[in-house]
Amino acid sequence: MQARGAPTVRLYEVGPRDGLQNEPAPIGTAEKIALVGRLADAGLREIEVTSFVSPRWIPQLADADAVAAGLPPRAGVRYGALVPNLQGWERFRAARLHVAAVFVSASETHNRRNVNCSVTQSLERFRPVLEAGAAAGVPVRAYVSTVCGCPYEGAVAVGAVVKLVHDLLGLGVGEISLGDTIGVGHPSQVRALVRAVADEAPLERVALHLHDTWGRALANAQAGFEEGVRIFDASLGGLGGCPYAPGASGNVATEDVVDLFERAGIHTGVDLDRLVDATSWLEGVLGRRLPGRVLRARLGERERAAAAREGEA
Amino acid sequence: MQARGAPTVRLYEVGPRDGLQNEPAPIGTAEKIALVGRLADAGLREIEVTSFVSPRWIPQLADADAVAAGLPPRAGVRYGALVPNLQGWERFRAARLHVAAVFVSASETHNRRNVNCSVTQSLERFRPVLEAGAAAGVPVRAYVSTVCGCPYEGAVAVGAVVKLVHDLLGLGVGEISLGDTIGVGHPSQVRALVRAVADEAPLERVALHLHDTWGRALANAQAGFEEGVRIFDASLGGLGGCPYAPGASGNVATEDVVDLFERAGIHTGVDLDRLVDATSWLEGVLGRRLPGRVLRARLGERERAAAAREGEA
Repeated sequence: MQARGAPTVRLYEVGPRDGLQNEPAPIGTAEKIALVGRLADAGLREIEVTSFVSPRWIPQLADADAVAAGLPPRAGVRYGALVPNLQGWERFRAARLHVAAVFVSASETHNRRNVNCSVTQSLERFRPVLEAGAAAGVPVRAYVSTVCGCPYEGAVAVGAVVKLVHDLLGLGVGEISLGDTIGVGHPSQVRALVRAVADEAPLERVALHLHDTWGRALANAQAGFEEGVRIFDASLGGLGGCPYAPGASGNVATEDVVDLFERAGIHTGVDLDRLVDATSWLEGVLGRRLPGRVLRARLGERERAAAAREGEA
Repeated sequence: MQARGAPTVRLYEVGPRDGLQNEPAPIGTAEKIALVGRLADAGLREIEVTSFVSPRWIPQLADADAVAAGLPPRAGVRYGALVPNLQGWERFRAARLHVAAVFVSASETHNRRNVNCSVTQSLERFRPVLEAGAAAGVPVRAYVSTVCGCPYEGAVAVGAVVKLVHDLLGLGVGEISLGDTIGVGHPSQVRALVRAVADEAPLERVALHLHDTWGRALANAQAGFEEGVRIFDASLGGLGGCPYAPGASGNVATEDVVDLFERAGIHTGVDLDRLVDATSWLEGVLGRRLPGRVLRARLGERERAAAAREGEA
């Protein structure tokens, strides 16, 4: 329950899908299920748990059906998954998850490199998924990537994003997540983008999916919030694309988004300490540190407090 | 020369002083001098190079006189140094540097732990430095720390900062740098602080000195810019307080600030690639990676470009 009148944001956790899919070493199905449970325990209410793409595309998520079958049922928590086509839809339905997600790029070259077809062809390909979602009463979310810039084409026109938003709404998409896939956006650009999109779509249906590659994810989140966006995608600890490797992307860390908003009195529903516990546990599973700033700062605070208690004892 | 009409910011580089002072392993005087030269080559026009405090306080900066004596003279570049008292002032004058800096906390407990006296006593202690500066025609900068929160007291009242700004201006300080020493500030807090300070001091004389401990330095810089601040302190690569260690502070990285503004068409005068070269060189000297995001992203871009060229050859 959120207090009436208090400003709130909704966080859409993408770590178990968007984050883990980039991990080179295989992670056990039991660990993935445990991770989702810990995220739900921390207060996250929308969690993208896996992807029903071909296992050949993303071997790390080849256990999608088993992960979905093992998820802890939690009142009020909605589980989502990527569903690129009707084969994926059948698996999604068998798994009885809550939100299906499709994806397309705002730039032709990125879309072609990603899924080997044009933007228009992508829209046609997931039309049957949207029709099946509508028939089944399942909301479908759409990811639009490269909205602030493309690694192949450079600048991406705001008009291209707005047109795609228009087309996606026409196809029956429920929520649209605007992705700064390579993290090049800056606050005034995000402001202008959100304003242009707001002419086409109610902002209650628009999320920002920001990457921290160039360090600006929180500055961009703040700009988006000030323009009226209230849904933010994030990945625990910044999991997803190692920011220290070439080709890195770097999802914004959920902890960083939670603390940005909670410090300003904006309610997220997430318990930061339980989330830090979950991420710290995942670092143990992965055997490495994740890049999120708040995670490190909070763990540092705990270490200092423990050292102080030891000094007093 | 800056283009008329184009928005500009001034960057005040604090890496050689505020950054290096936290390095545990000794760094050679020649390397320090070379670092300053590389920063000037990258276009930085205000560089704090050392501190004329007692070598017992900060052993890393015990070679302050030698560093100052060896600095490359550059037209248009102003070198600054910390000057806590009249003994420091004599050394500063002998070194013929351009800007002297004094420091005080907005919270009593932090000031007492830092320099073992009250805020009022701190102001009295550097009154003679300000008088000497005025007599010699040397501008004196004042750092006010803990403006967004204190590690001992928690919240710091905006009124305490505003009163200190008032007192410092009365003492003849030229420029005041407001420091979020522990990086806990958030954008709406920074906005409110800047608005309150602007009632007391012209913003042409107010800098923001932001730490990225909680990942919000750029969000806060953007908020400060939007409220009219045009001077930003930064440290190459985020040098200064390792963000992965307990007790860490973490200066905002100069590259991150440069890229935040330049992407939005706001002129900094800094050549990002030459700055990245300087920081990359310093990483070699230190034997470790620095935490700045843009540094890693830019080096990653270069690696991918090199790999692509190799693939074509």
